[in-house]
Amino acid sequence: MDLKKSVAEFKALQKTMMAYNHASGLLYYDSVTGAPGGITDALGDTLGTLEAELHRLYVNDRTAALLDELWESRDALDAQTRRETEESKKDYDKIRKIPVEEMVAYSVLQNKSQAVWHEAKKTNDFALFLPYLEKMLETMKRFAGYYDGAKAPYDVWLNEFEEGFSTEYLDGFFAAVRGGLAPLLRRVLDKGDVIDDRFLFQRFPVEQQRRLSDYLMDLMTIDRAHCGLAETEHPFTINFSKYDVRITTHYYEDAVASSMYSVIHESGHALYELHVADELYGSCLSGGVSMGVHESQSRFWENIIGRSPEFVGCIFPKLQELFPQELKGVTAERFYRAVNKAAPSLIRTEADELTYPLHIMVRYEIEKKLFSGEVKPAELPEVWNAMYREYLGVTVPDDTHGVLQDSHWSGGQIGYFPSYAVGSAYSAQILRAMQKDLDVFGLAGRGELAPIVGWLTERIYRFGCMKKPVDLIRDCCGAAFDPRFYVDYLTEKYTKIYDL
Amino acid sequence: MDLKKSVAEFKALQKTMMAYNHASGLLYYDSVTGAPGGITDALGDTLGTLEAELHRLYVNDRTAALLDELWESRDALDAQTRRETEESKKDYDKIRKIPVEEMVAYSVLQNKSQAVWHEAKKTNDFALFLPYLEKMLETMKRFAGYYDGAKAPYDVWLNEFEEGFSTEYLDGFFAAVRGGLAPLLRRVLDKGDVIDDRFLFQRFPVEQQRRLSDYLMDLMTIDRAHCGLAETEHPFTINFSKYDVRITTHYYEDAVASSMYSVIHESGHALYELHVADELYGSCLSGGVSMGVHESQSRFWENIIGRSPEFVGCIFPKLQELFPQELKGVTAERFYRAVNKAAPSLIRTEADELTYPLHIMVRYEIEKKLFSGEVKPAELPEVWNAMYREYLGVTVPDDTHGVLQDSHWSGGQIGYFPSYAVGSAYSAQILRAMQKDLDVFGLAGRGELAPIVGWLTERIYRFGCMKKPVDLIRDCCGAAFDPRFYVDYLTEKYTKIYDL
Repeated sequence: MDLKKSVAEFKALQKTMMAYNHASGLLYYDSVTGAPGGITDALGDTLGTLEAELHRLYVNDRTAALLDELWESRDALDAQTRRETEESKKDYDKIRKIPVEEMVAYSVLQNKSQAVWHEAKKTNDFALFLPYLEKMLETMKRFAGYYDGAKAPYDVWLNEFEEGFSTEYLDGFFAAVRGGLAPLLRRVLDKGDVIDDRFLFQRFPVEQQRRLSDYLMDLMTIDRAHCGLAETEHPFTINFSKYDVRITTHYYEDAVASSMYSVIHESGHALYELHVADELYGSCLSGGVSMGVHESQSRFWENIIGRSPEFVGCIFPKLQELFPQELKGVTAERFYRAVNKAAPSLIRTEADELTYPLHIMVRYEIEKKLFSGEVKPAELPEVWNAMYREYLGVTVPDDTHGVLQDSHWSGGQIGYFPSYAVGSAYSAQILRAMQKDLDVFGLAGRGELAPIVGWLTERIYRFGCMKKPVDLIRDCCGAAFDPRFYVDYLTEKYTKIYDL
Repeated sequence: MDLKKSVAEFKALQKTMMAYNHASGLLYYDSVTGAPGGITDALGDTLGTLEAELHRLYVNDRTAALLDELWESRDALDAQTRRETEESKKDYDKIRKIPVEEMVAYSVLQNKSQAVWHEAKKTNDFALFLPYLEKMLETMKRFAGYYDGAKAPYDVWLNEFEEGFSTEYLDGFFAAVRGGLAPLLRRVLDKGDVIDDRFLFQRFPVEQQRRLSDYLMDLMTIDRAHCGLAETEHPFTINFSKYDVRITTHYYEDAVASSMYSVIHESGHALYELHVADELYGSCLSGGVSMGVHESQSRFWENIIGRSPEFVGCIFPKLQELFPQELKGVTAERFYRAVNKAAPSLIRTEADELTYPLHIMVRYEIEKKLFSGEVKPAELPEVWNAMYREYLGVTVPDDTHGVLQDSHWSGGQIGYFPSYAVGSAYSAQILRAMQKDLDVFGLAGRGELAPIVGWLTERIYRFGCMKKPVDLIRDCCGAAFDPRFYVDYLTEKYTKIYDL
C-alpha cells in the first residue's frame, strides 16, 4: 500500500517534469522559429527560472527518499517502473552534484552563448564567440568533475551523450572506420570528377521545395497531426512528447538536395519519437534512448533509404512533377549518382556519406585536445583549418565555413559529435538485420515504407528508454555492435557508384 | 532589514510567476500559430501541470504571511512595491478561494473547450460546443461564488475584466450610448447605400498584404525586435513581457481592409505593452492595467487614427504602390469613405465603428441572461438570432456567422465584451485630451506617429498597472470618464461622412 502510494508520487513527479521540459523546449523552439530577434535576455530570464524551479522540485530530500525507497523495493515493481527508477536514480545522483546556482548560471550562459554564436557565425567573428566558448568549456569541465572526478572530463561527457562511450572505445571505433574508409576514399578520388551534379544547384523554387517536404513526410508515414515542420537556419528535431514532435528544415533555392535530405533526416528522428509506446508517455523513459541511436535512425532514413537507387527511383516522378524545368532531361539514375557524389568539402551537414565520418573525426580529435588543454579555445580556428587540410584536403576560407559552422559547442554539446558517426555505423548493422526479415530496397522502390517503420517500431522505437543503447542495438541486430558493417556497407555502395 | 529581505523574496516570487506566465502564454500562442493539429490533449496536460505548479508556488502559508507582512508595512514601501503588494494581495485573496483541483480542472476544460469551439465553428455545429459552454458557464458561476458570494455572479466577472464595472454601471453606459447612437444610425441608414466599397473586396495578393502589415507596424513605430507578427484564424495580441510581444492577423485575399485594420488594432495593444516602464519588468504590474484600457488603445489606433481621413491620406500612396491594379482610379477620399461605411452586419470583428457597439450590446444582454438563468445555453442560437434581428436588423444564416463567431465564451471570457465598447468610449475622451497638446490629425496626416505614441506612453503606457483604470483615465483626460465624448465623436464623424 505504501509502495503503491510512492509509485503514484513518482509517476506524478515524472509527469510534472515532462511539463517543464515541454515548456522549456517550446521556449527554445519558438526562439529559433518565430520569435522576434530582441528577446534573448527576457527568454534567458524565463528559462533560468524554469530551470531553477525544476531543480527545486526535483532535487530535495523527498525525491531522494522516494527514489531510495523505490530502488530498495525494485523487485516488487513492474518492469517499466523499475526502469524509470533506475534511470531517475542515475539522473538524480548526477543532478544533485551540481549546485542549483551553477545550473541556473549554465542555463543563462547556454542561452546567451547560442545567440552570440549565431551572430558570430553570421559576421565571421570568432573573437566574438570565443569568451562564451571558453566559459562553456570551463563549465563543462567543472560539471564533469562534479559528475565523476575520477574520470577524464571528456570521457564523462562522451558517456553522457552515449552510455558506454569513452575515448578508449571511440579511438578504436574511429581507427577501424578510418582504416576501412581512407583507402576507399582514395580510390574514389583517383577516379576523378566523374559525377556531374551541377543540375542540383539550379534555381529550385522554395514553394515547390515546401511541397516536396510534405510529400516526403507523407511517404515516410509521418502523422502530421503530431509532427510539425518549420523553417530555421539549422534543421533539427525537438519532441515535447510523443504526441508533439517538431522538425525544421532550411530551404536553399540553389541546392534542392539540401532541404530534401534534411527533411528525410529529421523525419527519421521524428519517427522514432512518434512511435515510442503510449504507456511511456509522461514518464522519464519516453523519448529516444540516446544520441547515437537517434542518429542511427535519422541517418538510416536519410542515407540508407533516402540515398538508395530504389528510393530515388520511387520519388523521381514526383521530383520531375515539382521541378519540370529544372530536371528536364535528368534521369533517376543521374539524380541518384548526384546525391551520392563523394567529394571532400567544408561543411559537415552538406557532406556526402563517405566523407562525413572524416568531418566527425576532426571534431572528435579537437574535442579531445580542448578537454585535455592541449588546444586552447583561442587556437581553434588555426587547429581546425589545419586538420581540415590534413583530413579532407580542403582549405577553409573563413571561420563561418570553418570552426563556427556548427551550433553544438555553443550549446554545451561538446562530446556529441561522435554519436553521429556511431549512429551511422549502427544504421548499417540495423540494415543487415532488417534485410533478414524484409525486402528493404524492394519496399523502398515501391514507396511502401510502412513495413520498415513497423520493423523499426517493433525493435527500436517503441522501447523509448526501456533498454540501454548497447542492449537495444544488440537485441535489434542479434549481435553486438560492430563497425565492420558500416565499412562494408560504404565499400559496397561506393564501389558500385564509382565502378571501382 | 527584515522587511528588505521580505521585499526581495516578494520580487523573486513575482519574477518566477512571470516565467510561468511566459511559458503558459507561449504554449497557447504556439498552439494557434505553428503547432500540429493533434496536440490538444498533450498540451492540456502541460498547461494543467504548470497551472498547478504556479498555484502551489503561490498559494501557501508563506505567501500569505509575506503579503500580510508587506501590507502591514506598506507605508515603509516605495510606491511600486506598495502597489505590487496591493495588487498581489487582492489577487491572492481571490485565488486562494478556488481549490487547486478546480483550478486545474478549469485549465484543462478551457483548453479543451477552445479546441471544440474551433471545430464547432468550422462545422457550424453548436451542439458540439454546447456541453463545453455549459460546463464553462457553470464553472464561472461557481468561481464567482468563491470570489464574492454576496454579489451576482455576472457582476463579479464584469468587475474582474474591468475594475469598477457592474451591471448597474453598464446598464447606464449602454443606455447613454444607445440613446445617442440609435438615432444617428437611423439617419445614416435613411441616406441609403451611398458609399461604394466594392473595390475593397477584389483579389488583394496576400504577399502584398504581408508587406502592408510590415509598413503599418513600422509607421506606428513598433520595434520589431520585440514584437512578432504571425497568422492565426483570429487576430490577437499576447505579451510574454514588455520585451516580447506577439501580434497576429488573418489575411483574406478578398478583403484587404480586414487584415489592415486588424494589424493596426493589435499594434495598438502592442504599443501599450512595449512601452510599459522598464522598472516594472518582472513585476505583477508589468502589462496593461485592464481590458477596457487595452481596448481603448487598440481602438484608438484602429479607428480614431487608422480610419481618419488624414491617416488614410498618408498611407494611400503606399497602398497604391502595393496594389496598383486593385486601386487603380480609387482616391484616398473614396478609400477613407469605404473603410468607414456603416452597415448593420453579422460579424462583430468586421463591423464598422458606428454599428460596433450594437454587437457588444447584444452580447452584454445575452451574458446577463445567461448568468441569471433567464436564458439556457441550449437556447443561445435562437436568442442570438432574435437579438441580431432586433438590434441590427440582420438575419443570421447559421451559427458559424452567429453565436459561434467569437472565441471568448469558449475560453471563459464571459463578461469581457463590454470592455470593447467602454474601451472605444475611453478612446474618444482620450482623443479630446490629446488634442489639447497635439495636432493629432496633422501628425497622422504626415505619418509622424511618434509624438502620439510618446503622449500615450507618458500618460498611459508607462504606468502598466501602477494606477487603477478609473484613475488612469481620469488623470490622462483631466476629468472622470464620460460616454458623452464617444457619442459626440461618432456623431461628428458620421455626420461628416454621410453629409447628414
